[in-house]
Amino acid sequence: MPRVGRRPGNVDTRAEIVDAARACFATHGFNGTSIRHVAQQAGVDPALVHHYFADKGELFVAAMGMAGDPRKVAEAAADGWGVSGEALVERFLAQWELDEGSTESPTFVAMVQALSASVEAAESMRDFLIARLGEFHPGEGELSAQRQALVSSQLVGLGWTRYVMRFEPVASADRAEVARWVGPTIDRYLAAGADAPPAAGR
Amino acid sequence: MPRVGRRPGNVDTRAEIVDAARACFATHGFNGTSIRHVAQQAGVDPALVHHYFADKGELFVAAMGMAGDPRKVAEAAADGWGVSGEALVERFLAQWELDEGSTESPTFVAMVQALSASVEAAESMRDFLIARLGEFHPGEGELSAQRQALVSSQLVGLGWTRYVMRFEPVASADRAEVARWVGPTIDRYLAAGADAPPAAGR
Repeated sequence: MPRVGRRPGNVDTRAEIVDAARACFATHGFNGTSIRHVAQQAGVDPALVHHYFADKGELFVAAMGMAGDPRKVAEAAADGWGVSGEALVERFLAQWELDEGSTESPTFVAMVQALSASVEAAESMRDFLIARLGEFHPGEGELSAQRQALVSSQLVGLGWTRYVMRFEPVASADRAEVARWVGPTIDRYLAAGADAPPAAGR
Repeated sequence: MPRVGRRPGNVDTRAEIVDAARACFATHGFNGTSIRHVAQQAGVDPALVHHYFADKGELFVAAMGMAGDPRKVAEAAADGWGVSGEALVERFLAQWELDEGSTESPTFVAMVQALSASVEAAESMRDFLIARLGEFHPGEGELSAQRQALVSSQLVGLGWTRYVMRFEPVASADRAEVARWVGPTIDRYLAAGADAPPAAGR
């Protein structure tokens, strides 16, 4: 149902697009949703959706209430294959902890609630992560699905431990300290050899 | 409200004790709940609760619908300090995957739903894990809170990736293979040196 008199730059318009996107992703998943589809649902022109969001991934990040885009986190920490796990962990935590000095993240808690409550939401998030991280080529090729899944497993588990369970000392330690503890795990998962440890080891 | 004519061995009685325990843990947390308290709530004698459950931890495992007791997982995999991360990961997965050959776990999904939906449930689980893993002395001393939290972070993140997000190849790989990928992470967190990497490193 297209509406008239709507102008770009209206805060309500952006919010309505995000609401429409949330409904589309929930119903059709990340892969089954298009910008055109969301625009139609919100009753606006697709160009207006593009005015606010560079691509479907950014729209998804906004719709899920995520604090940051995982690809940007990975890119910012990347230096060819020399991605530093420690830097990646610190940026991951900083993305979720909106207030400086805070070690809490209501946004992360809200996200895991949404994902664990709905198979569709979990599938949308998985497909988004695969699409987003699949585009991330730090120098020598794409990040394999196995590496993506293993890095994700440690990062989401870290968020779970720090924000949901509030398990000390991980809950209150400063970001840099947590990054020193967990960074080497990410380094191992990102390392080239991690793709085939069984074959190499036995 | 005590009831009469109830006999041990009755399936309904056990279920009613579990229901009462779930309500107590939800309201008072793990530390604030006692066997006596649960018995009172269920209208049975505390001895009857002990008839079904060895201790409060076992009652918590049943109330949360958990497939296994994390202490037993850790004990079974332990060999002095030579706990094998690979064995620990494989047992962790086996505890959640009730059917042989299945790589799904509705039980794990139900648990993360409950924990993310309620601060009290998350706190109960954390206090249970601290109490349970704190008792676990593989040879040379107790598992420090830091090690417990880091091991938990990788295991819960693995469960999340495999059961909730269904992120391939982690979702469908067999347990032994996943254990080879993730085991070294657990080894590093369990290693003595992992307690003070910052001090040692800088």
